[in-house]
Amino acid sequence: MLAVGDSASRTKLVTQDDIDAFARISGDENPAHSDNEWSRASRFAGPIAHGILSAGLVSAVIGMDLPGPGTIYVSQTLEFTAPVRPGDEVTATVTVLELQPRRRVLLETVAEAGGQVVLRGEAVVIPPREA
Amino acid sequence: MLAVGDSASRTKLVTQDDIDAFARISGDENPAHSDNEWSRASRFAGPIAHGILSAGLVSAVIGMDLPGPGTIYVSQTLEFTAPVRPGDEVTATVTVLELQPRRRVLLETVAEAGGQVVLRGEAVVIPPREA
Repeated sequence: MLAVGDSASRTKLVTQDDIDAFARISGDENPAHSDNEWSRASRFAGPIAHGILSAGLVSAVIGMDLPGPGTIYVSQTLEFTAPVRPGDEVTATVTVLELQPRRRVLLETVAEAGGQVVLRGEAVVIPPREA
Repeated sequence: MLAVGDSASRTKLVTQDDIDAFARISGDENPAHSDNEWSRASRFAGPIAHGILSAGLVSAVIGMDLPGPGTIYVSQTLEFTAPVRPGDEVTATVTVLELQPRRRVLLETVAEAGGQVVLRGEAVVIPPREA
């Protein structure tokens, strides 16, 4: 049984290859995410990862670990608080905040890189019956 | 200048290859997204795309079209309302809802497949100075 305070994390090194692959899949090929002149002249002084790529790491913790396979993803809020750059190790952490009616579970979802929060939000999920 | 009601859309055919690539990048390799026995026995009777992959299509409209390159992604809410299956054509549409203080713009963000809403939510962005 899930309990309030249960937590799981995953860490991933985000590479320019990951960013390029995400750009191809999503179609978000805007130059902020490419290692090119445009991104080096931008306010971030180099390429940054798509915010939604960090959200994918949160999705990985939910789908693989807590609650894990069979979970239904109901909703997610995302606040993008700092950029992720190629070479950053990003740690996504999911923590049970509340057990709600109709088998819903409220999760805190945070991603950090280099000691800085890059993404924060909350998710609602329906865990599999056995979780 | 952006105005309330401005809108842009993109349509993408989501393939099993896209889903497999997203699984590799994000690390969300849970079997609901793979074309295997587990997914065929699941409530969706086959593989479904990651919800966050559809969010990537929304990100593509924001980053490429409205407001386009140079936009800062502040936040996003996502409600996953129906599954996306390999072979589905997904259309993501972004519409300006409100011009807010401090150059922020509130956007409605919706994705549809086969006439059904699969994802809905709102985003806050800061457009580039020229938008």
